[in-house]
Amino acid sequence: MHPGSAVPPVDLSSIVSVAQAEGEAAGRTPADVWDYLVGGSGQEVTLGANRTALDALAVVPRVLTGLSERSLHCRLVDGEARMPVAVAPIAYQKLFHPHGELAVARAAAVAGVPYVVSLLSSTPMEELAACGGSLWFQLYWLKDRSRMLDLIRRAEAAGCEALVVSVDMPAMGRRLRDLRRGFTLPADVRAVHFGEQQASRDIAAGGSSIASHTAMAFDPSFSWADLAWLAAHTRLPLVVKGILDVDDARQAAHAGVAAIVVSNHGGRQLDGAPSSVDVLPAVVDALDDSVQVLIDSGIRSGSDVLKALALGAHGVLLGRPVCWGLALGGESGVAHVLSLLHDELDNAMALAGCGDPSSIRQLRTLTPAARPGGRR
Amino acid sequence: MHPGSAVPPVDLSSIVSVAQAEGEAAGRTPADVWDYLVGGSGQEVTLGANRTALDALAVVPRVLTGLSERSLHCRLVDGEARMPVAVAPIAYQKLFHPHGELAVARAAAVAGVPYVVSLLSSTPMEELAACGGSLWFQLYWLKDRSRMLDLIRRAEAAGCEALVVSVDMPAMGRRLRDLRRGFTLPADVRAVHFGEQQASRDIAAGGSSIASHTAMAFDPSFSWADLAWLAAHTRLPLVVKGILDVDDARQAAHAGVAAIVVSNHGGRQLDGAPSSVDVLPAVVDALDDSVQVLIDSGIRSGSDVLKALALGAHGVLLGRPVCWGLALGGESGVAHVLSLLHDELDNAMALAGCGDPSSIRQLRTLTPAARPGGRR
Amino acid sequence: MHPGSAVPPVDLSSIVSVAQAEGEAAGRTPADVWDYLVGGSGQEVTLGANRTALDALAVVPRVLTGLSERSLHCRLVDGEARMPVAVAPIAYQKLFHPHGELAVARAAAVAGVPYVVSLLSSTPMEELAACGGSLWFQLYWLKDRSRMLDLIRRAEAAGCEALVVSVDMPAMGRRLRDLRRGFTLPADVRAVHFGEQQASRDIAAGGSSIASHTAMAFDPSFSWADLAWLAAHTRLPLVVKGILDVDDARQAAHAGVAAIVVSNHGGRQLDGAPSSVDVLPAVVDALDDSVQVLIDSGIRSGSDVLKALALGAHGVLLGRPVCWGLALGGESGVAHVLSLLHDELDNAMALAGCGDPSSIRQLRTLTPAARPGGRR
Amino acid sequence: MHPGSAVPPVDLSSIVSVAQAEGEAAGRTPADVWDYLVGGSGQEVTLGANRTALDALAVVPRVLTGLSERSLHCRLVDGEARMPVAVAPIAYQKLFHPHGELAVARAAAVAGVPYVVSLLSSTPMEELAACGGSLWFQLYWLKDRSRMLDLIRRAEAAGCEALVVSVDMPAMGRRLRDLRRGFTLPADVRAVHFGEQQASRDIAAGGSSIASHTAMAFDPSFSWADLAWLAAHTRLPLVVKGILDVDDARQAAHAGVAAIVVSNHGGRQLDGAPSSVDVLPAVVDALDDSVQVLIDSGIRSGSDVLKALALGAHGVLLGRPVCWGLALGGESGVAHVLSLLHDELDNAMALAGCGDPSSIRQLRTLTPAARPGGRR
Ligand SMILES: Cc1cc2nc3c(=O)[nH]c(=O)nc-3n(C[C@H](O)[C@H](O)[C@H](O)COP(=O)(O)O)c2cc1C
Ligand SMILES: Cc1cc2nc3c(=O)[nH]c(=O)nc-3n(C[C@H](O)[C@H](O)[C@H](O)COP(=O)(O)O)c2cc1C
Ligand SMILES: Cc1cc2nc3c(=O)[nH]c(=O)nc-3n(C[C@H](O)[C@H](O)[C@H](O)COP(=O)(O)O)c2cc1C
Ligand SMILES: Cc1cc2nc3c(=O)[nH]c(=O)nc-3n(C[C@H](O)[C@H](O)[C@H](O)COP(=O)(O)O)c2cc1C
Repeated sequence: MHPGSAVPPVDLSSIVSVAQAEGEAAGRTPADVWDYLVGGSGQEVTLGANRTALDALAVVPRVLTGLSERSLHCRLVDGEARMPVAVAPIAYQKLFHPHGELAVARAAAVAGVPYVVSLLSSTPMEELAACGGSLWFQLYWLKDRSRMLDLIRRAEAAGCEALVVSVDMPAMGRRLRDLRRGFTLPADVRAVHFGEQQASRDIAAGGSSIASHTAMAFDPSFSWADLAWLAAHTRLPLVVKGILDVDDARQAAHAGVAAIVVSNHGGRQLDGAPSSVDVLPAVVDALDDSVQVLIDSGIRSGSDVLKALALGAHGVLLGRPVCWGLALGGESGVAHVLSLLHDELDNAMALAGCGDPSSIRQLRTLTPAARPGGRR
Repeated sequence: MHPGSAVPPVDLSSIVSVAQAEGEAAGRTPADVWDYLVGGSGQEVTLGANRTALDALAVVPRVLTGLSERSLHCRLVDGEARMPVAVAPIAYQKLFHPHGELAVARAAAVAGVPYVVSLLSSTPMEELAACGGSLWFQLYWLKDRSRMLDLIRRAEAAGCEALVVSVDMPAMGRRLRDLRRGFTLPADVRAVHFGEQQASRDIAAGGSSIASHTAMAFDPSFSWADLAWLAAHTRLPLVVKGILDVDDARQAAHAGVAAIVVSNHGGRQLDGAPSSVDVLPAVVDALDDSVQVLIDSGIRSGSDVLKALALGAHGVLLGRPVCWGLALGGESGVAHVLSLLHDELDNAMALAGCGDPSSIRQLRTLTPAARPGGRR
Repeated sequence: MHPGSAVPPVDLSSIVSVAQAEGEAAGRTPADVWDYLVGGSGQEVTLGANRTALDALAVVPRVLTGLSERSLHCRLVDGEARMPVAVAPIAYQKLFHPHGELAVARAAAVAGVPYVVSLLSSTPMEELAACGGSLWFQLYWLKDRSRMLDLIRRAEAAGCEALVVSVDMPAMGRRLRDLRRGFTLPADVRAVHFGEQQASRDIAAGGSSIASHTAMAFDPSFSWADLAWLAAHTRLPLVVKGILDVDDARQAAHAGVAAIVVSNHGGRQLDGAPSSVDVLPAVVDALDDSVQVLIDSGIRSGSDVLKALALGAHGVLLGRPVCWGLALGGESGVAHVLSLLHDELDNAMALAGCGDPSSIRQLRTLTPAARPGGRR
Repeated sequence: MHPGSAVPPVDLSSIVSVAQAEGEAAGRTPADVWDYLVGGSGQEVTLGANRTALDALAVVPRVLTGLSERSLHCRLVDGEARMPVAVAPIAYQKLFHPHGELAVARAAAVAGVPYVVSLLSSTPMEELAACGGSLWFQLYWLKDRSRMLDLIRRAEAAGCEALVVSVDMPAMGRRLRDLRRGFTLPADVRAVHFGEQQASRDIAAGGSSIASHTAMAFDPSFSWADLAWLAAHTRLPLVVKGILDVDDARQAAHAGVAAIVVSNHGGRQLDGAPSSVDVLPAVVDALDDSVQVLIDSGIRSGSDVLKALALGAHGVLLGRPVCWGLALGGESGVAHVLSLLHDELDNAMALAGCGDPSSIRQLRTLTPAARPGGRR
């Protein structure tokens, strides 16, 4: 629980679904931090569309498939995962709990799912690597290319298993909640992968120190050529995160990446962008299994994971719900959320007649537009 | 009415529609039992979709068909029914009224519609058979195959006219309302078709004794081969309940069943499954009248029955509304609900110009997607 | 205003749209009469769909058509009307105002639109004929064919210009509001076209005397052959009211009627029937101008009339809004509603670039389904 | 702020989005003026559809386009603009702030966007021309052709760069809010481009003096031939504002206009007309870049501008939001709104991977109807 709060600690066992964790965490998180976590950009139309599209999508279960056992194990990028889920990169996790990234990385390691370290982590990746799980390191493209190479070398040395390059942040989306509040990071939370100097400058600057990172350090002119350069400068498999257009997906595949993440950044970047699941089928069709397709933005249950996989995704990234768990109980809160998601997906697979993640792809799906309109 | 309650007994004649019974029963049922009855799984998206889809579907009435008389009689599976409706299998009906299954079976017998005895009935099927109506016996696939055969022999001996095999319960859906409450059966309500020992063990175990039944006794590895074995071991016609996929429907037909029930278990199993009526037309087309197609999940009025039949179903199963009636007035409550449904369907057929159930199939239907969009 | 009410008389000039009249009238009408007027059958899904479908439909206006004058005049059935609108047959209009049908017929005459006398009028048609407007007489098919012929002869003698045969009442829809209240007619309101004896019997019977009319006097076995017989026994043009199916529309045209009314009886008969405008385009296409197509159910503004005509209707019937006007101010209330509708339609035609009703048919329409989905 | 109001002056820097300005301005504007500003015609269905359609439309962003710089500059009609936005003609701007049009024209000049002077401006165009920005003059077709020519000569002399002919006002839409209130202009606000006499007559007449302008002075018989005459009598480029039909768009192009504005007049003319964005794609396709296509009605954010351009528009007109700014702080209020819109569009372009307005056209769009319905 957040220090200083008078709300009694939550009994995790009373939380019986991932979605329920949101309401419980809301009451235990300072309002400005909560707004930073759950908000989207602009009028939050895309944020809302993520849920609307998932709710409108139906998956047709199969029966009598004769499976007594199920395995949720799968390969994600180049490693094994105990379910087709990874923890999405989320900046500054100490905002939500003093243990921050360490608590999340530990819970992810225990759950057997990859943890994606944000470039803007408030804990050094080396400490997280000590948790023993599978780590992926997330990068935004930096103006200072040598500093970027340094970080990549550190990630390689720390044993990170993939580089996730987030390409949807040429600028930061206008998060109106933060702008209205003038949200700034507290003194004890900073982006430790940036040098001391840089971090302090941000804090001194006041205002939205988070937005200023983006403007100061990130390079908006990042291009496909740069991606090729990056691929040539690391031995780690690349994951390109933040793709929605089918031609961009094709170009990423062409660039030799191991996976893409179809994502609208949880509705935090272009307000007006489509929901991830609305563009997923076309992307899957275009790639034809040449690279893995992961997806995020709005996943809130095992049933949502089933839906994403039924549309052709190989796995999902889970963002905010992990932070709800973190806010609720540090490592055990995150562990609880991940274990609920596992149980929900396991249950959904059982009910859909699927023995493993790959068989989910064979399920039929129905969307409102595609509904059969009677017999004549 | 439920014993011990201070709410005055309801005047059944003031209830003029099946749908109205819900509100009246809610006030007369303990909250945990009510949640057990009306709840769905997960976020209850499928539960909601059942109603949304039925409401969005329109049936085009015919006029001047010259019928002065109507008959609602029809064949369901191998027997006669006074309307194209059967009472769905619902576990533990003593939860809703001390007379439980007996009250329902009597009312169904009087109404002339089949009553499907749940495997988890709190009254022995032999007592229900004494009511004189048409009984069907519902099975989940048991790990203990010999116990299952015993039950089938009992059902045959008791004069049951069909075996309904529910295939959508390889595991139990996550009913969050029950999980949150830790809902358990009261001491005087138990699944009498399970041996003494089994039932007591459940109660002792505390927690969701209902979920534990499923896990302990039901066999998730149930397959098409097992269904073939079952068909070879009973002389009763088989009804496979819980099909949504068109290929599963075809396979059931191929397996020689007499009927299938297109059902999402009233939104209680896979949350994210489509509404039954959204998949019905494709299933009907695929089967081409080789087996009967029944449907349930969300039927709440005679107009809904008309819609289901207009999409090609041969009959419907009615679930929760029967229990509303039971909670409201035991046998007479159920009788009132069934008689309202009969009157509503009779009225709907009159207004649609249909003299019998089979002519309903000739009506045109319109769904939002299929609506004609103007003349150009 | 209704006698005995303490609500101050309404200032009609403060009512600036047809739709606004509803709210004003609600406060000035006894609750049971109001429910009888505005209610629909069953769960009122069709009642709601009438508005949803009209609101979802868009009409594309034309510009620079160079018209300084507009004429709303048109032919309806075999007569002239000052706008493409007729007053729908509504039973027992004395319920809403002591002057009842007389007030409405006078206002309609002044407005230059046909008034359809209901078979269940509480004022004799001969009194209404004295108002000097264009009268149409509406019939339900009576069990007693000679009594029906008598009424037709009276209608012919009184100068009625058309016979409107309502074919959507083989039984009365289940109006739950009335059933719940046990609504009955007050002693001073009765269906005067039925003999003394008949009317008194109804009142004595108590209960829903209106529903009993239907059951006792109306013949549900009415067929296309009977319609042909009727056509042979009157010199008046026939209008068949209550058609929704395209084949029924074709058959009516084949039977030589002058017009049909596409109608779901204002959502009062088959709940689950489509909205009128959703089926209108197919009906218009099928008939190909061989007979006139009128439409009712849900028309509440001049813009709605424009929409109906843009989909191909030749005119509309206005139901409940006329009774709102009646309740608000007798003849002047009705006159106000009709004059508002005229002004609204005139304005809509001006804004759409239409000089006369027939040119409205040339306008493009857009429905949600038909909306162009971007350029690729 | 409006004189005499007790609401404290707004801190503009606390307003972080164009949309937010609405709520702030509502509390600072007299209710009748507010209703005049934000209201639509009839039941305001079209008003609502403008927003629904924009929200339902999604634009698919591109990534890694390698742009470090963006330019929002573009050509609008025959001039340069600093973003693809012009200030829509809005009558009587002194209603919202004592500085009225002058404040708006100054802010527009500073922002580098064209300001469209309404025919019904409460400030003479010559005073506005002195602000130094790009002015366009908007005309309704006047009965008195010589007075119209005088105004055109004045516009040419004042340096206006285009004539905007609004063709969607053959009559004024029925704005029920104003009719209910009997809204009239205060004594100090009048249409100065009409002679003294004319203006006073209006005020004396009481009632909706605005509606009476339309009826008295505007010529509803305005035709394509008149437009041709107008084109022959001015050297200014013509913009035809208020087109929704694709054939009208073609005819305007044929008439040699420089641009059209696809517009439903902000939902204030034909209630029941489609939203502008719903008809835009067909219009763009038909014109094939032969003339510019501008659009207005419902634009409330940079994301909305992006959507309009992605559907093929060359620019947008911004109506009511400009007046919110005006009400909030005169010139600085308008400047703030325009600068927010600039920042929002700049941000949206960055996030969509667009370096200039024309590249926005290459983005894919998705509408509900066009959503891909799963893979099978
Ligand atoms: C508070 C917050 C911080 C985030 N920080 C990052 C980040 O540093 N790097 C990144 O690539 N994505 C970041 N994201 C986006 C997430 O990785 C992910 O795409 C998104 O949260 C998924 O949607 P969901 O939260 O609905 O599951 C952040 C998201 C949130 C909510
Ligand atoms: C409380 C409850 C208990 C149920 N028990 C059983 C059962 O024992 N066996 C079975 O096959 N279906 C069972 N069902 C599912 C019903 O047979 C039926 O499919 C469903 O209730 C139909 O939906 P409806 O309630 O919306 O009409 C149960 C449903 C409910 C609500
Ligand atoms: C109170 C009431 C009484 C009606 N009585 C008759 C009737 O006697 N005969 C008939 O053909 N239709 C009758 N109708 C149906 C109307 O003629 C018409 O079809 C319907 O009201 C049109 O819909 P609207 O009310 O939404 O405009 C009645 C409708 C109402 C609301
Ligand atoms: C209060 C008000 C006054 C208007 N006056 C005029 C006008 O004088 N001339 C004109 O062509 N359009 C006029 N319009 C329409 C606008 O130019 C524009 O088409 C509309 O406001 C765009 O929609 P928006 O307000 O949703 O952005 C007016 C609109 C409003 C709201």
